[in-house]
Amino acid sequence: MTIRSSEIRVLCSRVPDYPNTAITVQGWVHGIRRMGGLAFVDVRDRSGVVQCVLEGELAETPLSLESVIAVEGVAVLAPKAPRGVEIRAAGIAVLSEAEAPLPFELNKKTLSAKLETMLDHRTLSLRHPKTHATFRIQSALAGAFRDYLSGQGFTQIFTPKIVASGTEGGSNLFGVDYFERKAYLAQSPQFYKQMMVGAGYERVFEIAPVYRAEEHNTSRHLNEYVSLDVEVGFIRSEEELMDLEQRLLAYMFERAAVGCGEELALLGVEVPSIVDIPRMTVAEAQAILRRKYGKTSPKGDLDPEGERLLCKHVAEGSKPALVFLTRYLKEIRPMYAMPAPEDESLTASFDLLFNGLEITTGGQRIHDYAMLTASMRSRGLDPDRFAGYMDVFRYGMPPHGGFAIGLERLTSRLLGLPNVREASAFPRDRTRLTP
Amino acid sequence: MTIRSSEIRVLCSRVPDYPNTAITVQGWVHGIRRMGGLAFVDVRDRSGVVQCVLEGELAETPLSLESVIAVEGVAVLAPKAPRGVEIRAAGIAVLSEAEAPLPFELNKKTLSAKLETMLDHRTLSLRHPKTHATFRIQSALAGAFRDYLSGQGFTQIFTPKIVASGTEGGSNLFGVDYFERKAYLAQSPQFYKQMMVGAGYERVFEIAPVYRAEEHNTSRHLNEYVSLDVEVGFIRSEEELMDLEQRLLAYMFERAAVGCGEELALLGVEVPSIVDIPRMTVAEAQAILRRKYGKTSPKGDLDPEGERLLCKHVAEGSKPALVFLTRYLKEIRPMYAMPAPEDESLTASFDLLFNGLEITTGGQRIHDYAMLTASMRSRGLDPDRFAGYMDVFRYGMPPHGGFAIGLERLTSRLLGLPNVREASAFPRDRTRLTP
Repeated sequence: MTIRSSEIRVLCSRVPDYPNTAITVQGWVHGIRRMGGLAFVDVRDRSGVVQCVLEGELAETPLSLESVIAVEGVAVLAPKAPRGVEIRAAGIAVLSEAEAPLPFELNKKTLSAKLETMLDHRTLSLRHPKTHATFRIQSALAGAFRDYLSGQGFTQIFTPKIVASGTEGGSNLFGVDYFERKAYLAQSPQFYKQMMVGAGYERVFEIAPVYRAEEHNTSRHLNEYVSLDVEVGFIRSEEELMDLEQRLLAYMFERAAVGCGEELALLGVEVPSIVDIPRMTVAEAQAILRRKYGKTSPKGDLDPEGERLLCKHVAEGSKPALVFLTRYLKEIRPMYAMPAPEDESLTASFDLLFNGLEITTGGQRIHDYAMLTASMRSRGLDPDRFAGYMDVFRYGMPPHGGFAIGLERLTSRLLGLPNVREASAFPRDRTRLTP
Repeated sequence: MTIRSSEIRVLCSRVPDYPNTAITVQGWVHGIRRMGGLAFVDVRDRSGVVQCVLEGELAETPLSLESVIAVEGVAVLAPKAPRGVEIRAAGIAVLSEAEAPLPFELNKKTLSAKLETMLDHRTLSLRHPKTHATFRIQSALAGAFRDYLSGQGFTQIFTPKIVASGTEGGSNLFGVDYFERKAYLAQSPQFYKQMMVGAGYERVFEIAPVYRAEEHNTSRHLNEYVSLDVEVGFIRSEEELMDLEQRLLAYMFERAAVGCGEELALLGVEVPSIVDIPRMTVAEAQAILRRKYGKTSPKGDLDPEGERLLCKHVAEGSKPALVFLTRYLKEIRPMYAMPAPEDESLTASFDLLFNGLEITTGGQRIHDYAMLTASMRSRGLDPDRFAGYMDVFRYGMPPHGGFAIGLERLTSRLLGLPNVREASAFPRDRTRLTP
């Protein structure tokens, strides 16, 4: 058989729209069952799976699982087939033959390989319908992030990831050989997004990778991840930022629920409706943990167990497990964090916890040049080393602030994936650089 | 004056909608003219400029250019003012004072500083209305890229920029210290986008930085730039990819024209309507250059002067200066390029030239495992070094291909910016790592 034209290719999910019509489907061999001289071949493409029935000589076609094939035939109603339809094959062509056996089975409901094996053969594990669904949803979340902010007057920015020095003063940086010089990979676009606010764009967002050379290898950490960054000028307080993030997440979740209904159903996930995300100070959260769970917390912060317990507390009464924590101690926040108006030892900053994990850090930033210089010096940082950043504060900087959402963490929390690596197509961690 | 609420902030461009109403504008001091006891202060925000009139004591307020201020007052019709409206100030507050003098003037029609000075004080040069317009248009182009492809069933992917080895075998790579190992910055998401096609997503795009450690420092090169990458499975030939890119660019240009009318007018740019982009082989293009301009070309390719002349030729009769070049020699294309069906020494690949510069490279890729292995070996590359990439070809890979558009090059060609650095907010080149 020759494939005559891709125009006549029909996606598997659309086959029911073509009853008693000659069509072609193309995709991967998802399953093969031979019975009484017939072969039932499941073809999987990006839209789903459809069953093809091969008779006579065609049924003898040698086929291996995951080979790429084209099947030509007539779509007929078949109440017992998965979509109520099957294709009676008139021809079949193998476009690319797959080796056998596969390292793990892709046509079972759930991928049962170990995480390491899945990641070693990532282009195979990504083919499993559930993994496929994960990254379709992730794409939808990123698209909704962009659309919501674009509708609010935001400009998408693209800032460099090769930088001359780190945002926080030097730790956890990956070094880069930049011609004769040493450069680093940006830990966040923090400085640049602030600079773009001050450069007159006022409202900016960026969707780009960030880099953390953290030694620990946990289920919550990636050394390279996608950061959804937002920065806003002319704010009055960080409350406006939490208002914005709440509306933004509500929109993103709504869009995922509407646009990825099948994917979510396959994963058994119900997307929460966000109405009002509670806000509490770190001190209040610590008191709740102490009172309710007898849990003590590190100074001015929650540990991972505390984050899990607090989300559990918030989710009682079946509310979404989302909570803003505010008023972090100055000493555990960066030098650009705006002090809280009522107490200089606290900051006008926040984190957002979702299903037991921090997915956002944000806050109002210092916009006064003298105040920022003093804050740097108090931490042993030399403002002259940050000349390009300081420039914007010397020449008129509005009150501003922002936040960042880790895309993989958001995805993993929304979909209930235990390890954040499962929400990264090709994760980078302490030991993994391939594929 | 205390700023009472940002809810009552009106963007400068919307002031004409509030005649005889008390409003507040916030922004940067764009200009100051003092006349007969009055001060005329131009306030600039992300939407544009509006004139404020200060009388009496208010007119004595010390103000420096580029300071951030809030002005409260009544909007009144003023036929001679730029927007036909001005604000009679009742109060003014300085939110952030700018140093004087500025390194260059921002309130002239055109920024007259040298490129190096502009880049040294980038957060200031970015404030100039024309530069501002450039990056608003760039944001619109990136958004339209995403929207068009999302509407065509594409999935947005996020692939790692830290990689274990280069796509093309090792040249022009920036090294990264990855814990105890040596890693590199990705020159392109080429391998990963192909892998995602083969991983079942079929149609993918990515918007992300790429890195080229090229020594040359020209007006066409950046060492870090944003690549708009596309890869498509189940194609029949590279012609489909050119069809797709043509429709995609037509949509992107249309969206920029509709959504950024003011910005384009300010820059004096008319966006071309794309109907049919001509396609010619490199050999045909070389013949035209020889015949018409007496120009000889390097073997199987055009040099920068040839690219400029060919675009000039195409643009005669006021068509857009866009042309696809096809059938590049195998020896100057990467090992994954699919040979042309009629001649093994040529490839099913293409470039797109726009206003004298290559903005895209694309083509069909080899999808057959044995053929790819042989192609690698013929170039002295060891397939085992690319195990993660080869995996997808072993387990069923559809015919596929794609292309990439350099966002800064596209922006600079569309807007007539002579140096691609002007289309990068914070360019990275041979000597520039800051700001």
